[in-house]
Formats: sequence, C-alpha cells, structure tokens
Amino acid sequence: MRKVAIIGAGMTHFGEQWEQGFRDLVVEAGVKAIEDAGLSGDKIDAGFVGTMASGRLVGQEHIGGLLADYMGLNPIPVTRVEGACASGSLALRQGVMAVASGMHDVVVVGGVEKMTDLDVNTVSDILGGAGDQEWELFLGATFPAIYALMAKVHMKDFGTTAEMLAAVAVKNHKNGAKNKYAQFQKEISIETVLKSKMISDPLKVFDCSPITDGAAAVILAPLDMAHSFTKKPVEILSSTQASDAIALHSRASLTGLRATQVASEKAYKMAKMTPKDMNFAEVHDCFTIAEIMAIEDLGFFKKGQGGPATLEGRTALNGELPINTSGGLKACGHPVGATGVKQAVECVWQLRGEAEGRQVKDAHIGMSQNVGGSGATAVVHIYKNE
Amino acid sequence: MRKVAIIGAGMTHFGEQWEQGFRDLVVEAGVKAIEDAGLSGDKIDAGFVGTMASGRLVGQEHIGGLLADYMGLNPIPVTRVEGACASGSLALRQGVMAVASGMHDVVVVGGVEKMTDLDVNTVSDILGGAGDQEWELFLGATFPAIYALMAKVHMKDFGTTAEMLAAVAVKNHKNGAKNKYAQFQKEISIETVLKSKMISDPLKVFDCSPITDGAAAVILAPLDMAHSFTKKPVEILSSTQASDAIALHSRASLTGLRATQVASEKAYKMAKMTPKDMNFAEVHDCFTIAEIMAIEDLGFFKKGQGGPATLEGRTALNGELPINTSGGLKACGHPVGATGVKQAVECVWQLRGEAEGRQVKDAHIGMSQNVGGSGATAVVHIYKNE
Repeated sequence: MRKVAIIGAGMTHFGEQWEQGFRDLVVEAGVKAIEDAGLSGDKIDAGFVGTMASGRLVGQEHIGGLLADYMGLNPIPVTRVEGACASGSLALRQGVMAVASGMHDVVVVGGVEKMTDLDVNTVSDILGGAGDQEWELFLGATFPAIYALMAKVHMKDFGTTAEMLAAVAVKNHKNGAKNKYAQFQKEISIETVLKSKMISDPLKVFDCSPITDGAAAVILAPLDMAHSFTKKPVEILSSTQASDAIALHSRASLTGLRATQVASEKAYKMAKMTPKDMNFAEVHDCFTIAEIMAIEDLGFFKKGQGGPATLEGRTALNGELPINTSGGLKACGHPVGATGVKQAVECVWQLRGEAEGRQVKDAHIGMSQNVGGSGATAVVHIYKNE
Repeated sequence: MRKVAIIGAGMTHFGEQWEQGFRDLVVEAGVKAIEDAGLSGDKIDAGFVGTMASGRLVGQEHIGGLLADYMGLNPIPVTRVEGACASGSLALRQGVMAVASGMHDVVVVGGVEKMTDLDVNTVSDILGGAGDQEWELFLGATFPAIYALMAKVHMKDFGTTAEMLAAVAVKNHKNGAKNKYAQFQKEISIETVLKSKMISDPLKVFDCSPITDGAAAVILAPLDMAHSFTKKPVEILSSTQASDAIALHSRASLTGLRATQVASEKAYKMAKMTPKDMNFAEVHDCFTIAEIMAIEDLGFFKKGQGGPATLEGRTALNGELPINTSGGLKACGHPVGATGVKQAVECVWQLRGEAEGRQVKDAHIGMSQNVGGSGATAVVHIYKNE
C-alpha cells in the first residue's frame, strides 16, 4: 500500500446557513481545500463525498455526480459514501484506499449536510434512520433517547454524574469559542447545562449536539508526492473501521461502543502506537455521554474514568490530552455527513500549528474518531505531521 | 495494485417481493454469494453495499452498519455507497480498491433496493432524486421524461425509430424468459411494445424498466488467492468510473452519455483491449433508448447504428455481440442499488459457463456498464475467466 497524506484542508462556517444551499456549501469547502493545497482543479483525479441523508433532507441523491458537476470536476469519478454520522470519515477512508491502491493520485474528500431547512421533528425522524428503523425509531426511540439509555447505564455502573456530562459540554464550548468556524462560540457554565431543558433523562439540551448546515473537505495525495504540493503534509498513519449491532438491544454492553474499541485497536496496530502516543483527539460527542464513552473506548482512560477525567480538566485544551479542540460536535456543530471530514480538517490544522487560539502545544500525532448512529459504525484515523 | 477476482456470486429473485423486507433480500443474496464461494463468513474482512434511496424507500440509512449486523459480519467494516442507479457498480468498485490496495483480502459486495412498498408516483419522485432535483425534478422532469428527450434527439439526428427502440425490449424479454431470477420471464413482440401505453413520448410502458425489489452479491479476493477458494475465479480486468453534468441542459450532447464514453475508454486502456474483444455485455437499459446509446458509447457500434444493429439481431443471444443476456434492467428488473451487482453476477455466470439456457458460447471476456441517473455517473467493469 502506498502511504497517504493530506495536502489541503478547508471548511465552511458551521451553523444555520440559510443563504447557502447544499451545493454551495460543498463547493465552498472543496474550493478552499483545493486552494489550500495550492492545486489547480485539473490535478484532481477522483473524489469521495460523505452525506447521510441528502435524499430526505434536500430531495437529492446521486451526490457524487452532482458534486463532480458543481465543482467543475467532471469527467473524474466522484462517489458518495454513507454511514450515518460517520459518512464523512467513511468518505475519507475510501479516499485513502483509492490513493493507497494506486487507482488514483490526487483525491478530494468532502463531507456535507444541509439540515436546517426542515423542522426539528422531521430532522429528528430522518436522523433516526441512523439507528434501527424497524426496532428503534418505529417504536419512538429517537437519538437523544438512545444515548440517554447508554448514559443511564454508565451512571449506574460507574457513578458518572450529570456534572461530569455537563463538563464535556462546558469544555467543548470553551474550545468552540476559539474556533471561528464553530456554530456556538460562546462559553457556558456547568450550571447552564444542568439548568437547561430536559430532552431525554439524563440528557438536557446542552448535552446534545445541534442541527447544523456545513461542509468540510481535504485533499489527499501519495505521501511521496505530497511535498511537491505543500511544505506541511499530514500523513494518515491509520484508517480503520468497525461495526456493531445496529440496535442497542443486541449489544453486549451499553457503556461503551465495541465498534470504537475494535476500530481503535486496529488503528493503534496499523500505526504501531498506543493511546499514550496521541497528543490530541477529535472524538464523536453527539451527546456528552458519547465523548465520555469515546475517551474510554479509545484507551485514553479506564472504563468509568472518562467522567472524572473530564471534570478534572484532564481533557481540556491545557490538559494532558486535549479532546475536541474544534469544539466537537457539541459546539462546532454537527452537519452529520461533514463531521468526520471536519475532524480531519481540525487535526490537519493542529498538526500544522495553524489552530490559532486553540493550538495544542507540540502537536505531532492526532486522532479522529467518528461514530455512525449509536455505534453500529465507528471510524478511526491517526495523523502525523511530517 | 493487486489483481482482483470474483470468487462467488448470488442474487435473489427480482420482482415484487412483498414477503421479504429490505434486510431479508440483502442477506439472502449475501449468503448465496458466500456459499457459492465455499467460504465461511469469518473469512470475510470487509463489505460494501450499494443502495440508492433506502432512506426514502424504507426509512433506513446506515445500511453498512445494518448489514454487518444482519449478515452476522460485525465487527468487520461494511460501507454503503450511493450513486443513484449505479450504486451497485460503485460498491463493486470500492470493493476492488479495498482488495487492490491490500487494505482487505476477502470482501463481500452487495446491492439492494426495496421499491414496491410505496405507490408508483412516490417512487418516481424518489428516483427523480437521481437527476438534478433543483433544475429537473422540481420542475416536473421525472426519468421517463428525461430519457424521452434523449430519445427524441437520437431519432431526429440518426433516424432511430420506435421499432428499433421496441427491438431492445423484445430482445431483453426473450433473454429474461431464460433467466429464472428475472422479473419478467415472458417474451413479447414489437407490436406489444408499440401498442403499449405512452408514458413520455416516444417512450411507451414497454420501453421502460420496471420497479423492482431485489438484491445481488459477489465475493472478491486477490487473484493470487482466488484459486484456493474456487476452480472458476473471474478476474476483474478493469473498474472505471466517470462523471458528467447532472442536468441535461448542461450536456454537450443528448445522443450519448459522455460518462459512459470516458469510463469505457479508461476501461479498455486498463484491460489493454478494444470493444472487439468483448464477447458479451450487460448494459444499462433503464429505458430502451439507453441500451441503444450504451452500445454506441461503448464502441460496439458507430453512433446512430445502435438502433439498426438491434433491429437486425446483432445484439441477440445468437448475434455477434449478445447484449443483456440476463434480460437487462428491462426484463430482469431494476432494483436500482442492486442492478450493478446483478450485472456482475450475470457476467460471472456467463464466464463460468453457468448461464443455462442463455449461455453465450465461448464466453471469455465480458463487460458491464451501469449508469447513475441520466448519466452523471457511469461505471464500467471488464471481466475475464481464468
């Protein structure tokens, strides 16, 4: 396999983008990434794009063909990949395989979702299609309820508290306040979270990531060609993916995601590294409990210690292992198909030393972990600066 | 790149499958392919599945996670790929890259669509999402209308007649009558087609492929491992894809699909072959005009000669170049996400000499051509028996 590097990165503002359509968003991100790589578009020979639910959200399928067209890239092949909220990372993984195989050299990877044009109940129903439609959504289990069940068990088994959950949101808002692309750039307090409206016990509205419009893109190239494009290539050391039962009732445990555990074990092996080698990580905090489970499942903290570690500030920007420096899904926003690619963009910026007020000191190795639905898919990437 | 072979193939019956759900269909096809390869499921280390519109058709996204679960494959990675009616071929192409790159060894590739649970107008609207939603579908241009426009121009420019279009349907029904998996296993006459109800002038109901439930699957492995699984591996010599403008109004020509032309040029180059080397082909006959354009765009006949060639029987089972021996989308059926994989299954059966009453004599090299929407995506594969 050829080694693969990211040579360009870009993203739109995440938030309510009523003045921009689905197509505008992904073109903006793609063009930014292409410009960042210092390329002309005709150097690109394939594309992959992650989007979860464009069919239901904007009535448009065939996103690969659409984007090849609107980015002025046709006749090169562009393919849409879908894995619910992990669609972006899956697109990145297909891009990695395309370059690693030698099938393509310079590949654009995008992620996009346009979510705020519909009412919240409709969007919630559409997002429910990421879980088990027949056995969960049809019976009323939307995503806040599904993650609330996991939170309840985590609290019961490990003594995780509402304050610990809130601490995730507080930290991520603090990071988001330093990110000009973030949907929420305002700090909040633990009290804000605890006093906010209950959505699905124990998850309150500030435990939940928002509904967001946005897009992100990166450009991939073989590592041995990367230096001809950029002084600061970021190598992708690992690109792994794993699956688990789609419905919670078929899982062996509700206090962690087996798919994350398996994907990260494979990722560490592929990179010949351990959790201790990571300088920072972007993880999938669709709900606050998800970040706590993630930092445990990824091996950063022992099972049950994610909550206390967060409350103690160990995952803060100045802590031992900064988590979600972008603001995460919680504060940066969660346009589902774009999230995995945005994580990669943040990792690139950190590893290049371009993360401005939220820069992690001496960042050399970073990780992203992206989850589809309630954990039937998890995707892990490890990145290294050159 | 490692060479890639198909070591197993299987499909469900195509048709109205009211007694089987989305999950049942793809599991049936997957299990048949795994059994055909003589594998146990634990040998499989990744999966790809093509489905166009499961979100709108059955309320379920995150098909990769779902299938890993229902096929008993988790925790291996399974990824959904979407490119409208070319979704199945795109899944095959991702599988080829996964094996070619060395990322995975034994890969299952599936395609599935469950379409008959909704009324035809709703399905037509959903399928319209394969074209340009904003500039075609929103203004009323469903797919029969879009292909009717192409047919009109083809008739005007080249003298293609309604009889020539009808000859495509007659031939494909004749082939479908020899395929026990086909939705329509009954021969029809040119008169049947010409007297059938007008859908969008000049396309009548018998010029259109049907709405279908079904699934198909193949198993891939590195060619150098293939003989340890099967006596009859089928090598994939080429796997190529190209794009074009998504809306007709942005195309340079309406009498052919540029994406097919570009993808097939690349495919011939990759295989070091010419159109004359093909012994048979499965092409994308979503409408009769589409097959005529395909056999021209693929270089089998000169532009404008596809209609006469079909009428003269040159593409019949006993003609010089049998086209759509399976019955094609027209008679075998068109469960959109499954179609590309079904084309591969038919090519495997032909190349193994297992195509029963529709076997092409001395079949050594075969091709499949699969189109997304009205041609914004085209995917071409060339296969060879060992």
